[in-house]
Amino acid sequence: MTIDQSLKSWVASANGHRDFPIQNLPLGIFSEAKGRRRPGVAIGDYVLDLVAIADLLDEDMREDFEQPVLNAWFARGPEAQRRLRERLAELLSDARYRDDIEPQLIGQSEVRLHVPCLVGDYTDFYVGIHHATNVGKQFRPDQPLLPNYKYVPIGYHGRASSVRPSGEDVIRPGGQRKGPDEEVPTYGACRRLDYELELGIWIGQGNELGSPIPIGEAGEHIAGYCLLNDWSARDLQAWEYQPLGPFLAKNFHTSVSGWVVSPDALAPFRKAMPARPAGDPAPLPYLDDAADRETGALAVQLEVTLTTERMRAEGVAPHVLSRGSADAAMYWSAAQIVTHHSSNGCNLQPGDLIGTGTLSTDQDEGLGSLLEISRGGKQPVTLANGETRSFLEDGDEITLRAWCEGGGAVRIGFGECVGRVVGSGQA
Amino acid sequence: MTIDQSLKSWVASANGHRDFPIQNLPLGIFSEAKGRRRPGVAIGDYVLDLVAIADLLDEDMREDFEQPVLNAWFARGPEAQRRLRERLAELLSDARYRDDIEPQLIGQSEVRLHVPCLVGDYTDFYVGIHHATNVGKQFRPDQPLLPNYKYVPIGYHGRASSVRPSGEDVIRPGGQRKGPDEEVPTYGACRRLDYELELGIWIGQGNELGSPIPIGEAGEHIAGYCLLNDWSARDLQAWEYQPLGPFLAKNFHTSVSGWVVSPDALAPFRKAMPARPAGDPAPLPYLDDAADRETGALAVQLEVTLTTERMRAEGVAPHVLSRGSADAAMYWSAAQIVTHHSSNGCNLQPGDLIGTGTLSTDQDEGLGSLLEISRGGKQPVTLANGETRSFLEDGDEITLRAWCEGGGAVRIGFGECVGRVVGSGQA
Repeated sequence: MTIDQSLKSWVASANGHRDFPIQNLPLGIFSEAKGRRRPGVAIGDYVLDLVAIADLLDEDMREDFEQPVLNAWFARGPEAQRRLRERLAELLSDARYRDDIEPQLIGQSEVRLHVPCLVGDYTDFYVGIHHATNVGKQFRPDQPLLPNYKYVPIGYHGRASSVRPSGEDVIRPGGQRKGPDEEVPTYGACRRLDYELELGIWIGQGNELGSPIPIGEAGEHIAGYCLLNDWSARDLQAWEYQPLGPFLAKNFHTSVSGWVVSPDALAPFRKAMPARPAGDPAPLPYLDDAADRETGALAVQLEVTLTTERMRAEGVAPHVLSRGSADAAMYWSAAQIVTHHSSNGCNLQPGDLIGTGTLSTDQDEGLGSLLEISRGGKQPVTLANGETRSFLEDGDEITLRAWCEGGGAVRIGFGECVGRVVGSGQA
Repeated sequence: MTIDQSLKSWVASANGHRDFPIQNLPLGIFSEAKGRRRPGVAIGDYVLDLVAIADLLDEDMREDFEQPVLNAWFARGPEAQRRLRERLAELLSDARYRDDIEPQLIGQSEVRLHVPCLVGDYTDFYVGIHHATNVGKQFRPDQPLLPNYKYVPIGYHGRASSVRPSGEDVIRPGGQRKGPDEEVPTYGACRRLDYELELGIWIGQGNELGSPIPIGEAGEHIAGYCLLNDWSARDLQAWEYQPLGPFLAKNFHTSVSGWVVSPDALAPFRKAMPARPAGDPAPLPYLDDAADRETGALAVQLEVTLTTERMRAEGVAPHVLSRGSADAAMYWSAAQIVTHHSSNGCNLQPGDLIGTGTLSTDQDEGLGSLLEISRGGKQPVTLANGETRSFLEDGDEITLRAWCEGGGAVRIGFGECVGRVVGSGQA
C-alpha cells in the first residue's frame, strides 16, 4: 500500500529525511557489533529492530523475522508485505506506541547492513539501451545494437556467491589480460577495473519450473529494489567473453545496498514507459501489457561519486561521475525482465537477485561506467583535485545513490552502495 | 584412498557389479516412498543408509549425515572423505559387520535419488574441444575456435534453481524463436530441443573471496563427479546468445545423476593429459602443473542412448547415439577448470556444481549432442525402428551413462542420468 503522503512519524528525524521518511519503510538485515543478524526497517536516522517488536506484529510474521535473511518473508508475497507496511506506518506515526517502540530504535551508524537474502541465483540483464549502445559502438561502430536487442530483454547468469553488502572492500581481481597490441595473454592483476551503476530487483514469490509468469502478474513477484554495483574487469572481459559471455570479468564481486525499497514505496514515482523510437518493433505479446506500458518506468534518480585516496587525505569533496535516472535508461521494464526470465519455464525463487544492467542516459553526464565516461580509456576524466582516471585505481571508492522525488510526493531514497578497491598484492 | 582392487564385499551383488563394486562407494542423497532425504552409499544393487549406521562411523561425521544434502560433508574436504571410504570398505568387506549392516541395505529400485547438494552456484564450462570446434564450424567455417580458446578454459554461469535429479521430466521450454528465413521472432515452444553430454564436478572445500586456488591444490577442492545433461534449446540459443551468452536456452532444466563418484574411486583411471597439438600454446603458468599434466585426464567411458515413445511401445532396444570418452574430449583438466574459475578471486563453495561442457570426441560416433550428430539439423539420424530425429520430440528419453574399466582395475560406473521430454502445452 502507498502510505499517505502527509503522514508524519513521531521519529523526528524521519520527517524530511532524504532517504527514510515514513513513506519509505525499507526492510534490511542488520547486526550490531556483537549481535546476531536480524531484520529491521529504516526510519529516519534509525533502524527499528523487527524481532524486538514482534509482539506488536501479526503472529504469522514472527517466525519469518527470526531468520537472518528475508527469503522466507519475501516468499509470502505482496499481501503480507502490504499488511506489514500498514502496521509499521501505524506504529511509527501513532504516538501511543512511542514508549514501546522507541527503545528498539538503533542508530543506523551503529549497525552493519548485510546482503538481505541468501541469493539462490543472481541474474544480470542489459536493459540500459544507452549503455548497450555506447559499449556496442566501441566494438561495432556501424551496428552498436545487435538485431535481437529490441525483441529480447538480454540477460545472463551471474555469480551468487560473490554478492556482497555495501561497504565491503573490492579486491582487485587477477586474470588473463591481452591488450590489442600483445601477442599472447598474461596472467596478472586487472588493469582496467570499472564499476557499473545498476538497480537490483529482489524476487518475492517464485514460480514453479515449467510455469512462466504472465506479464500481468510479474509485479506481484517483485519484493523490492536496491542499488547494485556490477564491478567489471574490462581487460579480462574483452579477452574471455566470446562466445559464452562475461564470466571472470564480473564474478569476483557484486555490491548491493542493504535496504530493500518496496514496490509500494516506489508507486508514486512510477510513470509511463518511454515511447519506443519510430521504427522499433512492439514488444512481443508475452512482454506487452497495457498497465506496464502506463506505469512500468521508475522515476529513480541516480548518482555516482568517486573519492580517491588522495582526495580523502586532502579533504576534497567526492567527484560526481554521473547523474541520471532509471526511467531514461531502461528499454525494458522490471515486469518485462521478470516475465522474460521465466518465459521458458525457468523457476525464480524468493530472494533471487536480478540486476537491470548498467543504467546510462543518453547524456554525457548520465553515463553509468568509466568504460563509457572515458570512451574505452581513451579520454581520462579529470577529477576535482586534478587527478585523472581512465579506470579505477587501488584506494578508489565508488558510491552509488538513488532517490525519488517530485510530483507532490515525499522524497524517498535507497541509501548508498559503497565499495572501495583494494590491491590483491598481484602484479 | 584407493581401495584394494582385490577386495570383495559380503554384499554379493557388489562383486562384478557394472557400476557399484566396493571399489566405488559413491555417496548420494536418497529417499524411500515416504522417508526423508538422507545420505547413502551405493554398493552393488543396494543403497546403504548412512544415518542408520551412524553408530559405526566416526562421531564427527554423524551431524553432517543428518542433513538432507551433502554440502556440509563436502566442506570437510578430502581427508574426511578418505576416512569414510576406508571405514565403509571395512564395514562392507569384513563379514563380522554383516549382521549389523545388512538390515540397513535398501534396494536401489526402491529409492529415489535427489540432487545431492543444495547448489549455490552452477557453472558450465566448454572444455570439450571437438564440441567447440563442431559448433564453431556451424557459425564460422573458417575459424571454428576463437583465439582465446587455447588460453582460457571458457565457462559461464548457469542456473542453480533448475538443476534437477535424473528421472525428472524435462518440460519443453517456450521462448523467442527466429529462423534464418523469418523476418521477426515469435514466442512459442522450442523447435530445436537438444541434450548435451557432460560430466559434472561437485566442489568440496571452497575458497575465500579474493583467494585463488593454486593449480597444485585444485584436486583437494573436488568432492566428486557425476553425469550432467545440459538440455539446450538451440533455436532460443541462436537468437538470444549475443552478446552475453546462453541464457533461456539453457536455464530451463539441467539433469544430474545422483551418485557422486569420488576422486579416489577414479584414481586408477587417471592418465596423462593428451599432448597438445603442435603449434598450440602451453597453458599459462597458473594453469600448468606437472602432476596435472601426468594424471589430469579421466579415462571415463561415455554413452548416450535414446528411446522414443514409439520405440518403447514397440519394445525396441534403445538407440545408441554416441560412445566416447572424457579423456579424448577434454582440452582442459578438472584441476585447470577449478583453478581458472577461482583465478580472479571468485569464491567457490561446498556443493557448487561445475559442468565440463559437452564431451564429444573427434569421431563421428562420439558426438555429444544432436546439434553435432545431425549437423545442425541438416542430417537427421535414423533410429533403429526407422524413425528419424534432428532434434528431440516430446516423449523422447535420453540416458547418459559413464564408467571406467581396464588397466587391471575393477570396473566402476556412474549410474545413469535420465530425462524424458514432455510437452508444455504451448504451440
